[in-house]
Amino acid sequence: MYIDDTIAAIATPPGIGGVGIIRVSGKQAFAIVDSIFESSGSLPLMDRPNKTVQYGHIVDPSTKKTLDEVILLLMQGPHSYTAEDVVEIQCHGGIVSIRSILSLLLAYDVRLAEAGEFTKRAFLNGRIDLTQAEAIIDIIDAKTEDSLTLAVSQLDGTVSNFVKDLREQLIAMIAHLEVTIDYPEEDIEEVTSHEVGEQLKPIAQQMDELLATAQSGRLIRDGILAVIVGRPNAGKSSLMNALLRENRAIVTDIPGTTRDSIEEFMNIEGISLRLVDTAGIRETEDTVEALGVEKARQYLDKADIVLCVIDGSTELSPEEIDILKSTAGRNTIVLLNKSDVNQVITVADIEAHGTFTAVESISAAQGEGTVVLSKWVKELVYGGQVSGNHDTMISNVRHISLMEDARSQIQQALDSIDSGMPVDFVATDLRGAWEALGEITGDSLRESMVDELFSRFCLGK
Amino acid sequence: MYIDDTIAAIATPPGIGGVGIIRVSGKQAFAIVDSIFESSGSLPLMDRPNKTVQYGHIVDPSTKKTLDEVILLLMQGPHSYTAEDVVEIQCHGGIVSIRSILSLLLAYDVRLAEAGEFTKRAFLNGRIDLTQAEAIIDIIDAKTEDSLTLAVSQLDGTVSNFVKDLREQLIAMIAHLEVTIDYPEEDIEEVTSHEVGEQLKPIAQQMDELLATAQSGRLIRDGILAVIVGRPNAGKSSLMNALLRENRAIVTDIPGTTRDSIEEFMNIEGISLRLVDTAGIRETEDTVEALGVEKARQYLDKADIVLCVIDGSTELSPEEIDILKSTAGRNTIVLLNKSDVNQVITVADIEAHGTFTAVESISAAQGEGTVVLSKWVKELVYGGQVSGNHDTMISNVRHISLMEDARSQIQQALDSIDSGMPVDFVATDLRGAWEALGEITGDSLRESMVDELFSRFCLGK
Repeated sequence: MYIDDTIAAIATPPGIGGVGIIRVSGKQAFAIVDSIFESSGSLPLMDRPNKTVQYGHIVDPSTKKTLDEVILLLMQGPHSYTAEDVVEIQCHGGIVSIRSILSLLLAYDVRLAEAGEFTKRAFLNGRIDLTQAEAIIDIIDAKTEDSLTLAVSQLDGTVSNFVKDLREQLIAMIAHLEVTIDYPEEDIEEVTSHEVGEQLKPIAQQMDELLATAQSGRLIRDGILAVIVGRPNAGKSSLMNALLRENRAIVTDIPGTTRDSIEEFMNIEGISLRLVDTAGIRETEDTVEALGVEKARQYLDKADIVLCVIDGSTELSPEEIDILKSTAGRNTIVLLNKSDVNQVITVADIEAHGTFTAVESISAAQGEGTVVLSKWVKELVYGGQVSGNHDTMISNVRHISLMEDARSQIQQALDSIDSGMPVDFVATDLRGAWEALGEITGDSLRESMVDELFSRFCLGK
Repeated sequence: MYIDDTIAAIATPPGIGGVGIIRVSGKQAFAIVDSIFESSGSLPLMDRPNKTVQYGHIVDPSTKKTLDEVILLLMQGPHSYTAEDVVEIQCHGGIVSIRSILSLLLAYDVRLAEAGEFTKRAFLNGRIDLTQAEAIIDIIDAKTEDSLTLAVSQLDGTVSNFVKDLREQLIAMIAHLEVTIDYPEEDIEEVTSHEVGEQLKPIAQQMDELLATAQSGRLIRDGILAVIVGRPNAGKSSLMNALLRENRAIVTDIPGTTRDSIEEFMNIEGISLRLVDTAGIRETEDTVEALGVEKARQYLDKADIVLCVIDGSTELSPEEIDILKSTAGRNTIVLLNKSDVNQVITVADIEAHGTFTAVESISAAQGEGTVVLSKWVKELVYGGQVSGNHDTMISNVRHISLMEDARSQIQQALDSIDSGMPVDFVATDLRGAWEALGEITGDSLRESMVDELFSRFCLGK
């Protein structure tokens, strides 16, 4: 392990604010901060009471210049974020003030922390497991309250506890099987196989139940990509405007949120929805029409839901028929717009051109879009179930894929038992499942994967 | 006073970071945070030790949902930022997490703080005076280490102490004069006037010494506007590039720093320098040439220093002669560029067209710009003195103007004494000086000015 050194980084977002925080963690954290800290107290920081707030100034010992008035948070390991000794320096939130203090620290035996390194240390020091570390990224990235709730529950250990419990049961079975292998007697093998098979069934069922939450979990965590198609004047803009007015996501008014003219983020039923108007692509790229069409197709391929807006008050145009054909067979909601005026298009007219998830009449101008979209977002995310009634939910694609892997190895084990294969085959399958589950929590994980995972954190976390 | 209520705001910069802080201040701060905080401890927050860090979760009591894992900083008044009871909630630095906690607080008897309201409360509660409150803005806005040092020293009370000391001396003299007014005997009046005159002279001198730091102080605090002029191909771009490479200010790589194509910020000799290329204005606005010229003139009018770049290797063009004429008589440094090739222009050729602060030969391409610019920045800021040898420096335009006002009233008092005016004239002048000085520290200040001043703070401070 390389975690003998002391690291520091700015933990607050870049920019100007009331407060800036520099976080310092490692064996020398207290001693090093002590050497640049002046206060009325005479005790060394290490001898001051743990978990206290200390007022004073950061002073450069070489120039005697005071860099800022600060408060320190003293948190001795192992009861700290990293499980190491941690000092947080809270200064006034100016760029130069924060940077000067960080630079001063780096002149000592302190290294600038890599992105995610504080959380990585918390993991390597065993304070949290990998699902909890990932939950911290999810909390920071959460775009809706539901995704926040999901991440907080993961941080509290719901996924960890589920996985750890499964692994304990599996390892007991593996031990049981291995005893049999060491003392090979035909009938004992058979009895053991049978017992293990009986124990595996409820495990497989628990895993199936958890995997059944994967679609909901993933969509709550990652949000929904909704792609809107339709000919000009079908009412796409009024739909988009009405939706935005009612559901504008909390993230969009934050500086730094990237957004181009064809994308809007909104919050529907607690789900983060990224709404892309493919017409916008074509319009902005009209000199390179082919590129626009290609981009639109890519969006359609990735869409979780397609909203096809048709003007219900005029006959279908050839262009609209093309659009219907290209979106049929997908999770497409056809919106027969302008229901407030005389309708000439029927559901049958639409269904003549393909199979659609639903055909709904709306008046986008009268703000009816939200009700319809909410219904189908709920249907997509919860499949008709009441939302949020899962105590444990799996949401991270990495976890889902490993859980599916583990589940299929359990299935193999069950199949081997059924077909009377030798117990060492069964043990191998169970060990595979046990390993896959261990990768979820990070108990069995390659170092390169750990590095890759933590590099997705922001600095100072 | 309206400070009976409890206020809250996000104290960290907007955006995503490792840590977010919500600051809560006021009589109900502890009780309200207590009602949304869950931890292993059973004591109410108010009964937990002051100045400690408390670990737990923020839970919405109505939905029982956990919003985030947090630590709290408990700081009971009067030893807190606002001198009131303050609780800081440190959560994971995600937008939704921070906003959800703030929203939850605002559902209680908590008001969203106005910009600068925490600092305003610190001022209204007498913890800091106005120069110290202004120093906090200056610390946050500081663009160089020197401006930070200046602001930190102001926060430590250097300006306050100077002003308070002067006011104490003045009030003693005013009292002395007023006793004389109450018992008017010709010769006592005369003796008193003479005594006061003798006491005023060292005061006037101290004020003059402080005011002598005003130019340096102002430029260190506010930075320098340097405007660069010259015909195309004179070497403006290579000068700008060379300067930037060596002196790029640390503020420019922060997202959110506004900057357009004609402006660059740099850090020279610890001074923040805003370098504007007026040619850039004309080039980008070539369809509205008149507007470009007008903008360039406005920059020239405001410039602290003008850098006029002339290609020294070719004869002066009519355009260059126009540029020289329009910048003569200003603080203009003429840079005879391309000194590495054969020079055809002499200093006398330049001076034939007007008076300039200096004419310097440089090779911008060989990076000689920084040396010359540093010399003239030092000359401008410190007037040839060694930098930073003032214990007390006045830098804020508001302070300078009030100090000048006070100084001129002291002068009036001295003149009145010299010309044998009655002591009540002298007392009136001294009272005027005393009032003006009191406005610096905020001891005498109109409420509207206080409001205006604090509205320049960022939220959460």
